[in-house]
Amino acid sequence: MKILVSNDDGISSEGIAVLAKSLSEIGDVTIVAPQTEQSAVGHAITMQIPVRVNEFKKGGKFFGYSVTGTPADCIKMGIKNIMKEKPDIVVSGINNGSNSAINIIYSGTVSAAREAAIMDVPSIAISVASHVVNDFSYAGKIAQQLVKIIGKNDLQPGTLLNVNVPNLPENEILGVKLTKQGHTKWDDVFEERIDPYGKKYYWLTGELTNLDNELDRDHFAVLNKYVSVTPIHFDLTDYDMFDKMRSWHLEENLG
Amino acid sequence: MKILVSNDDGISSEGIAVLAKSLSEIGDVTIVAPQTEQSAVGHAITMQIPVRVNEFKKGGKFFGYSVTGTPADCIKMGIKNIMKEKPDIVVSGINNGSNSAINIIYSGTVSAAREAAIMDVPSIAISVASHVVNDFSYAGKIAQQLVKIIGKNDLQPGTLLNVNVPNLPENEILGVKLTKQGHTKWDDVFEERIDPYGKKYYWLTGELTNLDNELDRDHFAVLNKYVSVTPIHFDLTDYDMFDKMRSWHLEENLG
Repeated sequence: MKILVSNDDGISSEGIAVLAKSLSEIGDVTIVAPQTEQSAVGHAITMQIPVRVNEFKKGGKFFGYSVTGTPADCIKMGIKNIMKEKPDIVVSGINNGSNSAINIIYSGTVSAAREAAIMDVPSIAISVASHVVNDFSYAGKIAQQLVKIIGKNDLQPGTLLNVNVPNLPENEILGVKLTKQGHTKWDDVFEERIDPYGKKYYWLTGELTNLDNELDRDHFAVLNKYVSVTPIHFDLTDYDMFDKMRSWHLEENLG
Repeated sequence: MKILVSNDDGISSEGIAVLAKSLSEIGDVTIVAPQTEQSAVGHAITMQIPVRVNEFKKGGKFFGYSVTGTPADCIKMGIKNIMKEKPDIVVSGINNGSNSAINIIYSGTVSAAREAAIMDVPSIAISVASHVVNDFSYAGKIAQQLVKIIGKNDLQPGTLLNVNVPNLPENEILGVKLTKQGHTKWDDVFEERIDPYGKKYYWLTGELTNLDNELDRDHFAVLNKYVSVTPIHFDLTDYDMFDKMRSWHLEENLG
């Protein structure tokens, strides 16, 4: 099995090393990841400037390819230019920090996996729900198991699995939940500061509030010590609103 | 009516000027847009570095606020820091180039409108389907009409309207279609080049292929000279796959 591994924390992060090690037990792993941290870049791709590819070494040994671009760039580059054959699966992570509920939208980790789904390659995004992760090894094990489960089942084309793991020792995790994208709200604050030259600048920060109380919602499941697995896709059509908008008669009222 | 206008082509682009002029006929327009072009940045937000806000003048007169960040940053900054009251509607555009089918995923224009929807403000993204636009004025008129139509109807919270206008004289446009996100495929190519110092670099390019043949699909409708209006949302859950995955029994087979 040929496995392409990427992330958004950058090729030198600990999470991608643990992921690659776990997946190398079940397949041939190729690592193509951003040269620098690309958190919260969403599904950005690099078109205005060129990108470069470098070989990245760890402990004197070849580890993978670093790309001077975004997570989505890495997947395109990995599949189109670096790997000789299309991978059987793409796994993105292990991210430092939760990628559930509204954060899916901003996540580079998820966008890497989503780019794979767009290119008709099954994929997984996996994150540990804390910016200070004690141990990525349980998430690495989950990723390996899930790759095997996908091999035995049908993940429909265009769908990826978004996995979030609580930042807890394995024996404190209560189990696994199949979930939907949850509801959370950021209360954004731009902190106003003054630079050393007397000019204003702003730093984006905020508080995230959970709005769910059912264990079949990703963020709430993780808060309650469950591993969350959510199937997501890239069809953004709001079919419910589409049906309601027939009564707007845009054909007659617009143009 | 308080209208917040943004885009991804940057505050000095022609499309945003035409849009702001058209919308100022029906409301109070505040412009908050990226200082530089931000095409294909998707739903990136700026968290690793601070952003700055500057007053932007055009012909010696105050035009709007430029932000050294992404389209999504502009919406957060516009709603949270610049406008004194929450806007009634956000309109993003007029983009130079189509934002339909798979391109919705990569679009900064659409992400600005989507950020508004996330913040519970009704919104529209509007694009003209060509990188060389002859005349934005028809798209400006469509935006104005659609703002009025939304005022008379219910756009459900969390839904935005993604509008694509053919790059044609008004009398050659055949009408308006309510559409769903269409199916297209990029055949990505990284053009390999050599820099002046003898080192390789890659430039992302590609060919887009249409896969639809129904006029209720955004990209195909525009190809056939119709204005396309698509309701989209930010719930990425694949509900169909969610139901199918119950038979995977992840609770027992994973962890």
